[in-house]
Amino acid sequence: MSTAEDLFHPVIELPEPVRAARYQRLVGVDDIKDRLRREAHVLANPAALAAWAAEHHQADLPALSLMADRAPLFVFAGDVGAGKTALAESFGCGLADTLNLPVYLYRLRLTARGSGLVGEMTTLIGDAFAHLLTVGRKARGRGGPSTVYILVVDEADALAQSRAAQQMHHEDRAGVDALLAGVDSLAGEQVPVLVVMCTNRERALDPAVLRRAAAIFTFRRPDDAQRRAVLTAALEKTSIDADAIGQLVELTGPSGGRPAFTYSDLTQRLVPAAILAAFPGKPLTADVLLDVAAGLTPTPEFRETA
Amino acid sequence: MSTAEDLFHPVIELPEPVRAARYQRLVGVDDIKDRLRREAHVLANPAALAAWAAEHHQADLPALSLMADRAPLFVFAGDVGAGKTALAESFGCGLADTLNLPVYLYRLRLTARGSGLVGEMTTLIGDAFAHLLTVGRKARGRGGPSTVYILVVDEADALAQSRAAQQMHHEDRAGVDALLAGVDSLAGEQVPVLVVMCTNRERALDPAVLRRAAAIFTFRRPDDAQRRAVLTAALEKTSIDADAIGQLVELTGPSGGRPAFTYSDLTQRLVPAAILAAFPGKPLTADVLLDVAAGLTPTPEFRETA
Amino acid sequence: MSTAEDLFHPVIELPEPVRAARYQRLVGVDDIKDRLRREAHVLANPAALAAWAAEHHQADLPALSLMADRAPLFVFAGDVGAGKTALAESFGCGLADTLNLPVYLYRLRLTARGSGLVGEMTTLIGDAFAHLLTVGRKARGRGGPSTVYILVVDEADALAQSRAAQQMHHEDRAGVDALLAGVDSLAGEQVPVLVVMCTNRERALDPAVLRRAAAIFTFRRPDDAQRRAVLTAALEKTSIDADAIGQLVELTGPSGGRPAFTYSDLTQRLVPAAILAAFPGKPLTADVLLDVAAGLTPTPEFRETA
Amino acid sequence: MSTAEDLFHPVIELPEPVRAARYQRLVGVDDIKDRLRREAHVLANPAALAAWAAEHHQADLPALSLMADRAPLFVFAGDVGAGKTALAESFGCGLADTLNLPVYLYRLRLTARGSGLVGEMTTLIGDAFAHLLTVGRKARGRGGPSTVYILVVDEADALAQSRAAQQMHHEDRAGVDALLAGVDSLAGEQVPVLVVMCTNRERALDPAVLRRAAAIFTFRRPDDAQRRAVLTAALEKTSIDADAIGQLVELTGPSGGRPAFTYSDLTQRLVPAAILAAFPGKPLTADVLLDVAAGLTPTPEFRETA
Amino acid sequence: MSTAEDLFHPVIELPEPVRAARYQRLVGVDDIKDRLRREAHVLANPAALAAWAAEHHQADLPALSLMADRAPLFVFAGDVGAGKTALAESFGCGLADTLNLPVYLYRLRLTARGSGLVGEMTTLIGDAFAHLLTVGRKARGRGGPSTVYILVVDEADALAQSRAAQQMHHEDRAGVDALLAGVDSLAGEQVPVLVVMCTNRERALDPAVLRRAAAIFTFRRPDDAQRRAVLTAALEKTSIDADAIGQLVELTGPSGGRPAFTYSDLTQRLVPAAILAAFPGKPLTADVLLDVAAGLTPTPEFRETA
Amino acid sequence: MSTAEDLFHPVIELPEPVRAARYQRLVGVDDIKDRLRREAHVLANPAALAAWAAEHHQADLPALSLMADRAPLFVFAGDVGAGKTALAESFGCGLADTLNLPVYLYRLRLTARGSGLVGEMTTLIGDAFAHLLTVGRKARGRGGPSTVYILVVDEADALAQSRAAQQMHHEDRAGVDALLAGVDSLAGEQVPVLVVMCTNRERALDPAVLRRAAAIFTFRRPDDAQRRAVLTAALEKTSIDADAIGQLVELTGPSGGRPAFTYSDLTQRLVPAAILAAFPGKPLTADVLLDVAAGLTPTPEFRETA
Repeated sequence: MSTAEDLFHPVIELPEPVRAARYQRLVGVDDIKDRLRREAHVLANPAALAAWAAEHHQADLPALSLMADRAPLFVFAGDVGAGKTALAESFGCGLADTLNLPVYLYRLRLTARGSGLVGEMTTLIGDAFAHLLTVGRKARGRGGPSTVYILVVDEADALAQSRAAQQMHHEDRAGVDALLAGVDSLAGEQVPVLVVMCTNRERALDPAVLRRAAAIFTFRRPDDAQRRAVLTAALEKTSIDADAIGQLVELTGPSGGRPAFTYSDLTQRLVPAAILAAFPGKPLTADVLLDVAAGLTPTPEFRETA
Repeated sequence: MSTAEDLFHPVIELPEPVRAARYQRLVGVDDIKDRLRREAHVLANPAALAAWAAEHHQADLPALSLMADRAPLFVFAGDVGAGKTALAESFGCGLADTLNLPVYLYRLRLTARGSGLVGEMTTLIGDAFAHLLTVGRKARGRGGPSTVYILVVDEADALAQSRAAQQMHHEDRAGVDALLAGVDSLAGEQVPVLVVMCTNRERALDPAVLRRAAAIFTFRRPDDAQRRAVLTAALEKTSIDADAIGQLVELTGPSGGRPAFTYSDLTQRLVPAAILAAFPGKPLTADVLLDVAAGLTPTPEFRETA
Repeated sequence: MSTAEDLFHPVIELPEPVRAARYQRLVGVDDIKDRLRREAHVLANPAALAAWAAEHHQADLPALSLMADRAPLFVFAGDVGAGKTALAESFGCGLADTLNLPVYLYRLRLTARGSGLVGEMTTLIGDAFAHLLTVGRKARGRGGPSTVYILVVDEADALAQSRAAQQMHHEDRAGVDALLAGVDSLAGEQVPVLVVMCTNRERALDPAVLRRAAAIFTFRRPDDAQRRAVLTAALEKTSIDADAIGQLVELTGPSGGRPAFTYSDLTQRLVPAAILAAFPGKPLTADVLLDVAAGLTPTPEFRETA
Repeated sequence: MSTAEDLFHPVIELPEPVRAARYQRLVGVDDIKDRLRREAHVLANPAALAAWAAEHHQADLPALSLMADRAPLFVFAGDVGAGKTALAESFGCGLADTLNLPVYLYRLRLTARGSGLVGEMTTLIGDAFAHLLTVGRKARGRGGPSTVYILVVDEADALAQSRAAQQMHHEDRAGVDALLAGVDSLAGEQVPVLVVMCTNRERALDPAVLRRAAAIFTFRRPDDAQRRAVLTAALEKTSIDADAIGQLVELTGPSGGRPAFTYSDLTQRLVPAAILAAFPGKPLTADVLLDVAAGLTPTPEFRETA
Repeated sequence: MSTAEDLFHPVIELPEPVRAARYQRLVGVDDIKDRLRREAHVLANPAALAAWAAEHHQADLPALSLMADRAPLFVFAGDVGAGKTALAESFGCGLADTLNLPVYLYRLRLTARGSGLVGEMTTLIGDAFAHLLTVGRKARGRGGPSTVYILVVDEADALAQSRAAQQMHHEDRAGVDALLAGVDSLAGEQVPVLVVMCTNRERALDPAVLRRAAAIFTFRRPDDAQRRAVLTAALEKTSIDADAIGQLVELTGPSGGRPAFTYSDLTQRLVPAAILAAFPGKPLTADVLLDVAAGLTPTPEFRETA
Repeated sequence: MSTAEDLFHPVIELPEPVRAARYQRLVGVDDIKDRLRREAHVLANPAALAAWAAEHHQADLPALSLMADRAPLFVFAGDVGAGKTALAESFGCGLADTLNLPVYLYRLRLTARGSGLVGEMTTLIGDAFAHLLTVGRKARGRGGPSTVYILVVDEADALAQSRAAQQMHHEDRAGVDALLAGVDSLAGEQVPVLVVMCTNRERALDPAVLRRAAAIFTFRRPDDAQRRAVLTAALEKTSIDADAIGQLVELTGPSGGRPAFTYSDLTQRLVPAAILAAFPGKPLTADVLLDVAAGLTPTPEFRETA
């Protein structure tokens, strides 16, 4: 059996300051944050649902059995740079606060797809889920779990590619199978583990995976209000005023056939490039920012070539 | 020889409460349920057909020999989420009741396609059918079998892909061959085993497989009446009335180019998401359900890219 | 050298009741049956041709040398379910009766294409033909052979695919070569062996194989008269009258873009499904048959995707 | 080093009756036969060219050095069944008579393409040419060679496929290289070996191979006169008269989009099928022949799918 | 662990005369040179940014945390011969001067993609980054680094190909993953290493790589002013005057569908060919240059075939 | 390390009569011959350039450093049979005369592409260049080299295929890399080695290779004057007069969609075939030549299928 080091990037205990800050910076995805909080609430306190049904419906609702039938799987789909991975790796910070429990973030290594020896991918994915099942079991307790685990599978399409794709190989398929088996094993045991698969190729995911998802959330590039919020936060303590930010919001929006700037474009390209343009001799001014923004091209939209 | 654990997901004795409930929940497929019951009746009581011919036709009908010539193979084809797998894995509950016999559900692991070593797929599929042949033989008795076995091959296209497909390899072909040999071996011995292959890519199945099927059933997304039935059952004991369910039925139907909701969309997404939206502070109301339904996108239809 | 068990499905001595019955049921292929009988006659009694030439032409006809130059290879081509395999595996019953000799049916395993180790396919096909050459030599005698052998290669396209196809690999090609060498070795020794290759992809067969065939027979779906004959035989001893059969014949014919029912559709789907629809409480009536026929879709025509 | 048995089909000493008869039966390729005789004449008597130049041009013509620069390679290209292989394997009979020397026919096994182990193809082709170089050297003598060797590479496209083709692999390329090196080694040593490559895919041959050919002969299906000649010879000693043969010639010619019958169609299908249709009770008559011809479809033309 | 010799081309200490000269010759990319200088400044003196913020904004700007979140990755994209590699391998000369520090240039061997054994690519790339991380750590000091390292990945598309591409294999993907992990490891440790990826196929780079880039610079063929500058420098000390250079600038510009000359076309083809045309008997004149230029075809533009 | 025998066809010391004659026969490529002579002059006498600059420009021209920056790589591109390989393998004869130095011709074996074991191609190409570097170093002397080496890579596209091509594999890429590294190693050491890559698929060559070429020469089929020159030389000492040659020139020119005859078509097909047509009984006359020419089809033009 592979060690955790082979299977996952270093495990991170949440909350953790960098990710907590990122979680706060993520604007415009409040409904997703809310839904994830509720899912975690139910997971952390399985008796709560029955109590709710008794209180509000005076009954043991049959529909509750449908909830138990679901896999703890969430798909984050959408364009590059729209915040999928950032949220997947940081929403545990919110859970930790809400639940008052430690939350551990596991990120599957892409190399868990195996080093190419046929059959290895299956083994590695199987091992990864077995690991989470083991830790999840230990975390279960009478009054609810002592810990919550989140498994993030980034760029999940590479792992769970649809059979409709032309280049399907058996080992890929076996990997999908191992993944499904892993997700099912978690569901079956009602362990406190949430699995999040991120992809910018939702259509490339195998239908058997999509069908199993409890929810599929679609992420989009930030709209005007979201860009305004991001920029306002990023430029805090500078002298850039709301008016200038308004101009930046407009300048970074969609225009002609060009898409809007992504979250990443704003935080990792625009602001740092503007700082460097000012540095070391000048302050960061609206003019510098507008000038740099005018010279940047937003990340092109991801388009399938299939 | 591989062990049963390598070849199959854990074997399940039917009836079993979760699947029995699913079987009851499956509406709109009464003709398929009926046909499967009759097939099983004949399988469980081989003398019954001759008795029927004697009674109703006063003859040993030559047509009965055609029935013995068939393979015990059924193909469940159709769109994602239309209930194929759910029925395949639960109809044994109905048989167990009707026949008053234990029914064992075997589900072929997709990894039975082999870990990629050439020739292994052939061996594993061969082993899987050999296993069923062995248990089937033991189950045969003078007055009919003591047990019935069901083998479900989910996503069978990955296993029995047509030679017309562009990416056919010899090992795949050998797997189809092993599958056909396995099906034939069961037919030849008249053992009490039914094989069900599920696929959302009927056209991708090898003609040699399709030709052998005793019946091919096509599953579709639920129509209005079926969605109504599903929702009514799922919302039992809540205060949602028929009127509200009618609105939900309309809202979840096909609209514009968008397809209708699948069975899974209704039971695994809509209702659970609505419960979570109400939980923990509010009851599940029609408004909540309609609101959640309006925000959901039905699973896209499976389309071949071939 | 591989054993016969590796190379062939279990060898069958003909005539054998099931196949003899199938041979009788095959209608509308009288010319093919006749031709095969004549070929076998000549093979079983090599002196007969010279005697015929002497009697009817008072000469040792040069044309007879052309006959000796041919390979004992027949190609059965045509649509799925048109009776190719059924005839290939049963015409030996007719020969056995005509020749008053035992006829052994060998069916090449598809796995004779090798387990994928390069070069293995060549070896296995070579072994298969060497096996038939050995038994064929033993069967030769002064007054003609003591036994006749038939080798059936079903779905031969997978074995003898054209080099014009896009996905040609060397090992495939080597397999074609081994096949040709095998056929030639049989021809050269004048052993009592007939080789039949079945395919629904005649155009996919390598030209070097097609060129060598003594005859290529094309099978089609049954026309009205053939469907009538099949149904009449299948429904013998029931009370279904000619009129009702006429209606069935019409209902199962081509209509719009839909093709006619295949032989298999009639005997393996329509009649058994109708019996089960009647069973156990009602007799098999015209209404039941017409009702079931209306609900069935004929097997789709095989279409190349090349 | 591989043995000759691995590399070649059994070596045949020419003339040999069957092939001599085939050589005689080949009509309409007199110019090719003539050219090959002249090439062999020069090969068998190297001094003859200089003598010719001295006699007819009173000079040591510079052009003779161009002849020595050529490779002893001939490409036979054209449609299936047009006699390419038949001529390649039989023209040595003509040479043997003309030169009064033994001629040995070597036919490269297609498996000389290697059993797929990378690099093996190169080795096997290298070995094959090394073998011919060795025997060729031994055959050289002062007054000309004591023996002539012919190497036939049938379906050469599989061996010498163009780099322009999409599916070129390195090992294929290495095979082409080995082939060219082999041909060059023969040319360099002036050994009495002729190489003939047959293909129905001239366009698929590597330009480096085509460029090296001393001549490329294109074969076509027989025209009216050629079909008449073939049929007249085949039907000798029967009572079929010229008039009836004329009708057959017309019936087997091109018609509508249908191509003419090939040589093989006439000699391996039409005449044998007609004999079997008459046998055993009737003589072979014009009516039988015309009837069988009407029922036959000529071999389809080979068309590249590239 | 692989040695540095396996992983990199010979390491070069900058400044070094040849590359320093090339760096000076590169005209028209002043903004890129400037940006790289600023990046290096910050890298070499991490405290400078905070000092800048304190001086110009009287604050510890939150935006500075965004800068620390970035990977030290730069993508040089654009047409063949536009100076990407030349700048990537020479800008360290500028840094060395500005920073007054030694700069070491590492160039990843393309063979670091592994010798094809599955999994090896991952290992080699991992080793390469581990090597840079090790040397980078040693170079860190209190007052800033003692050395700066530049890693150039030329033709990076071969290493970081997009998953959207049709021919994606797992080992490729694993290589991308290893690359991302390597880049992240450098960022996390704030070591003085800059990574530059050059490609003429920006669209072929994996979005996960592009998203991580701190900046993407697009290189274009030289415009009129840039060609004039290049030629003026190259022809220094000859008697070619500005007027003649003006004619050359026009002659080497885009014309009709033909693109402009690349930097390489001017410096590696035009000028050397003209010198050789003059050599040894004539001086290099405007006429010779114009004549040679008229006979040269500019390098065709790189166009994706995807 | 591989031996020279593995890597190269037998090494040839130039001048050598056959190739010298071919070099003389090559007409219409005088500018290429001239350029190659100048390149070799500079290579053989490195001081000559500085002397030239001093004499004609009274300066140490900066442009001379551009010449030292180039790789000693020449690409011969163009149609099949246009003389690329003939010139590449014979121009050393010219150099040997001009330089009064021995010239050694190395021709890379195509099998240097490796026997397919991944990584081997890289090793073999590396070994080949290492070999030339070693002999080149030994040949360097104070007053210029004692020997010149020419490395010919025929059909170079198979070795240096563009990454833009669809079927690019890592090992191919590694081969390109090894090639580039090899070329660079020669340039860096200023050893007396010229590398010539021939291809009829210039567009298939990797841009990184093309970019590095000091010159790319395009070869075309011979025009009227060139065909006249070739034929006049080939028919020397015969009685064919200028008038008849004029007719041949016209007959072998382009016509309709048909391309002109290649050099090879004229010297290896037309003239030898005419000689054989006359031999042994008649002289070679204009009529024979015209007759044979009318019956020949020129080699088809190479067209990419990409």
